[in-house]
Formats: sequence, C-alpha cells, structure tokens
Amino acid sequence: MHSVSSLRTKLERSIEALNFQSSPKELYEPIIYTLGLGGKRIRPIMVLLGADLFGGDVNASLHPALAIELFHNFTLLHDDIMDNAPIRRGKETVFKKWNANVAILSGDTMFAIAYDFLTGVDPTLLPEMLRLFTKTAREVCEGQQYDMNFESLPAVTIDDYLEMIRLKTAVLLGCSLKLGAMLGYATAGDANNIYRFGENLGLSFQLQDDLLDVFGDEEKFGKEIGGDIVSNKKTFLYLKALELSGPGDSSALQHYFSTQTMDPDEKITKVREIYLRLNIREKTNEQVDFYYQEAMKYLAEIRVEETRKDELKALAKQLIGRVY
Amino acid sequence: MHSVSSLRTKLERSIEALNFQSSPKELYEPIIYTLGLGGKRIRPIMVLLGADLFGGDVNASLHPALAIELFHNFTLLHDDIMDNAPIRRGKETVFKKWNANVAILSGDTMFAIAYDFLTGVDPTLLPEMLRLFTKTAREVCEGQQYDMNFESLPAVTIDDYLEMIRLKTAVLLGCSLKLGAMLGYATAGDANNIYRFGENLGLSFQLQDDLLDVFGDEEKFGKEIGGDIVSNKKTFLYLKALELSGPGDSSALQHYFSTQTMDPDEKITKVREIYLRLNIREKTNEQVDFYYQEAMKYLAEIRVEETRKDELKALAKQLIGRVY
Repeated sequence: MHSVSSLRTKLERSIEALNFQSSPKELYEPIIYTLGLGGKRIRPIMVLLGADLFGGDVNASLHPALAIELFHNFTLLHDDIMDNAPIRRGKETVFKKWNANVAILSGDTMFAIAYDFLTGVDPTLLPEMLRLFTKTAREVCEGQQYDMNFESLPAVTIDDYLEMIRLKTAVLLGCSLKLGAMLGYATAGDANNIYRFGENLGLSFQLQDDLLDVFGDEEKFGKEIGGDIVSNKKTFLYLKALELSGPGDSSALQHYFSTQTMDPDEKITKVREIYLRLNIREKTNEQVDFYYQEAMKYLAEIRVEETRKDELKALAKQLIGRVY
Repeated sequence: MHSVSSLRTKLERSIEALNFQSSPKELYEPIIYTLGLGGKRIRPIMVLLGADLFGGDVNASLHPALAIELFHNFTLLHDDIMDNAPIRRGKETVFKKWNANVAILSGDTMFAIAYDFLTGVDPTLLPEMLRLFTKTAREVCEGQQYDMNFESLPAVTIDDYLEMIRLKTAVLLGCSLKLGAMLGYATAGDANNIYRFGENLGLSFQLQDDLLDVFGDEEKFGKEIGGDIVSNKKTFLYLKALELSGPGDSSALQHYFSTQTMDPDEKITKVREIYLRLNIREKTNEQVDFYYQEAMKYLAEIRVEETRKDELKALAKQLIGRVY
C-alpha cells in the first residue's frame, strides 16, 4: 500500500512533467497556471487510493487520476467566471488574470484533455469508466446550476440543498474512488460501496466546510470567515436556522440574507448570534458526523483486508479535520 | 446507400426524440432550444454517409452522429459568448436569450452529452474513435483561440489564416467522416483518405463562405453581406488583397480594417472596389477550387465502388454551392 503523501508526490511529479503543446499560448498557459496553483489533490489521490486498495497498478492509474484533476480544475475555471470570483487559492483566477473568454476556452480544452487522459485505460474497462465519468460531469454541471438557482430562489429546502451539494461536490469524490476501484478490477459490489463511501464523505466535507465558514479559525480555514453570510449563501446552517427559528429570528435572518448593503462585520456578528442561540453549530456537527459515519459503514462493507483501508481512513480524517 | 435527404430526416427525428431530464431546466432548455434552431446538419450527416459508404449500419451510427452535432452546437454556444453574438440562425443566441452563465454551463453539459453518445459504440472501436474525437475537440478550441488572437494581431499571413480555418472548421468535417468510416470498419488507409476529403472540403467551404460574405447574394447566403468587412475580420480575401496591393490600396485597406466608426455601407463599397481591382474574387475562387479538387482526389483514392460515392459528391457540391 502507498501512503497518501507518497501518492501526492507522484501526482505532483506527473503534473510538473505535463507538456502541452506551446501554441496557442493563450489556451495552454492558463491550464499550466491553474494546475500549478496546487490544492490538496484530494480527487486524483482518491483515484490512486481506490486502485491501490484492490491491488491495482498505481503508476498505470496516474493518467486517469490526472483526468479527474483536469476535470475538477476545468469546473473551477468556469465556476469562477460564473461567480465573478477574483481569487482562487490565494492567486488571481484565470478569469481575472486573463479574461472570461480565455477562461471559457482554456476550460473547454481542459475538459477535452481530461478525456484524453482517460482514453488510455485497459479497453475492457473503458466503456464503463467513461460512462461513470461523463455521468458525473453532467451531475457536477447540474449541481452548479442548482447552486446558482438557489441564489434567487426564496424557498430552498434542506433536502434541495443536500441534493445540490451531493451533485456539485460529493459525486466527484465517489467517482474518483470508483474509477480507482475499477482500475483495480474490484467487484461491482465493492466498486459501488467505495462510491457511496466517497459520496457520503463528500457530503460530510461540504457541511463541515459550511460550518468552518462561520465558526472556523481563519488561519486554518485558509479563507476569510463569514464569506457565505456576507454573500447571502443559503447553506445548511442558514436553512437549519430558518427551520428552528421563531418568527423574530426568522424574519431577521431573511432580512440579513437579502440585503447587499449591511456592514459585513455587523452582519456576521448578528447572524452568528442567531446561529448560536439556535444551537446550529451542534446541529451541523451532528449532520457532519452522520454522513461521516455513513461513509465509514460503506467502507466497512468493502471486502479487502482491514489494514488495507488505513490510508483511506487517514485521508477521510484529514478531509474532515477531526479526531474521531 | 441512403440519400442525404433521407439521412437528414432520420437525424431530425432522432433530435426531436431526444429526451433529456427536465431538471434543472436552466441547463436543459437551452440545449433543446439550440438543437431546435436547425441548421443543415452537415456534420452528423457526414458521420452517417461515412458509415454507409463502407457498408456500416446507419441506424447504429445515429448516436455517434448526434455526438458530433452536440459537440458542434456546444462550440457555437461558447463562440457566441466570446464573439458577443446576438443572433444565430435568425434567432437569439442562448447567451442573449438567457445569459452568459447559462450559455457556459449548458454548453459544458452538451460537451459531456456528446461523449455519452459516443460511448455506446462497439467497444473495439471506442479507444480510437475517442482519441480522434478528443483530438478534434482540442483542435477546434485552438482554432477558435487563433481566430480571436488574429483580431488584435497586426501581421497575419495567409498560411496562418489557412491553418486557423483548418483547425476551427475543417478538421471537424474530416473527423465526422472518419468516425463514420470507422463505424463501417473501413481500412486505416480509407479512413485517412475520407478524413483528408473532409478536411479539404472544409477549407474549400470556409473560403467560399468568406467569398460569399463579400460577393454573395444576401437571400441565398442567409446572412447580411459585408459582415466580415464591417467587423474588420482578416479573411483570405483581405490577406490576399494586402499581398497583391500597391502602397495606396494597402494603406487604404489597413485603414478600413482598423476603424470602428466608418459608415458600414461606404466601407463595404470601398473595400469591394479594391478587391475587384485586384481580382480577389477570381483568386479566391481559384483557392476554393484548389481545395475542392484536392478533396476529390482523396475521395477518388477510397477503395469502394464509385457509385457508392455519389451521395458524398452530391453533399460536397451542395456545400460549396457550385456546379462543377
């Protein structure tokens, strides 16, 4: 078994060694720039861990892992245009550093390159891997569309929200692990269990991210605290608070989440007060734990020696950032 | 052998029968809208003709043909954002009717759906078909990038221009025909010859389109005449005129193609006068013919009974719109 850190090193080397053609540079420079911004490489590592779990060849799995990383970065490039986001991982977004047209077209090219990296797998695996990858790509687009729709929708339910983050975030983790499992010639049952593990871990991770946005430590979180509140994002915390609040808090919350002009610090303080009063921190923690435990149940179902699962468990802990 | 018109009918029926999921509607309505705008369906017809030429199953080739049509329409959706184009085929573009975000994301989804339609082919053909399709997708993106670059580049050569239209337009015709040939289990030699036939036909077609933009009949052309001149597009006609002009015409041309404020009708008249004086109409016609004849040479090389090529020849004539 390979460790997460050794797999990350392998991946970084593969990414550094990528050699796209040099022309037109407006197309390929933003791709190199984006891949060079780093990130935790969680998704491609999951491809490699999935393969390794079932005794697959990790080196032969690097290309499909890169396919996932290219795809993920393509979605970030296009999301940043749609969200008008100037900063990603502490650096200017492609959309900001170049322009929207460059971000659209180099994003499209990354999506195509992702398929190039997938095409080289064992041809007997190719149709099923392609089907999963493309289905996931469509789901991620659907998730992004729901996310944008929710901005202007007055009534979003918690179930709507959970389905949105499942599509936008969780399915890609499931897909990454399952592609890896396929590369290790796992049984259909094991491949589905590792998909559900990833999907539930993704839900747990996103809810934890929502929580840290309000109650996190700015330094550890790596983003400014309160961003979701300032941008009126209807996260799990907001929707849960609406559900549990009396008329007073409810109308205050709805007011705060519809204004664009309120002082950010005051808004964050007021919303956080309501959340604390309604025990939203604990309620969200419970939900994070619920999906984490669900993930662990699916992992337990997978029919390989328990010690082989250690690296996946370590990655899961690292992702949720808690000691269980 | 099937006729072009019967294949077009088959395709239209398949497109009408497409049933994407209904939610989120912001994602799927623009796709249905775009496919419903019509067009000549040249590229998917080429997939079917390519298959039919080699005795392939036309009905089994409908999905790969739709893959090409989805891909082509995806590029139009994104190009229209980049070109800020309000009208396509006489109707509002998605970008204009909805907004840029919808056009980005529903375009991305169309690209994914294209791969879905390709994935169902005979698995023994899949890797090679995927490789060709993805390579072509990247080339089309590169062509679009060069096209945008040329807008602000002072010195574009005729060779640069020909390479740009090869990437942006011609390779997709070659790819469509070759995918069809693969579906008909053509030999590698025949598959390459039909690719070259399509590529040269694409070059001929684009140069003919450039010509009609200046000297065409508005009603037959379906677009306003002189659009390329008004928008300062450096087409073959402009570049050839620059090459052949003396200092006076040359500086006049460069002036006309850098101003945004000149009266459109006056500009078109003045530029057309220079073109006529320099025999640009004839020079471009020669080039259209050259690529058309090249295409025919490659078609002649293909080792099937000559009469089987009649529909391809008819389509080629229809595309270039001349009697040879």
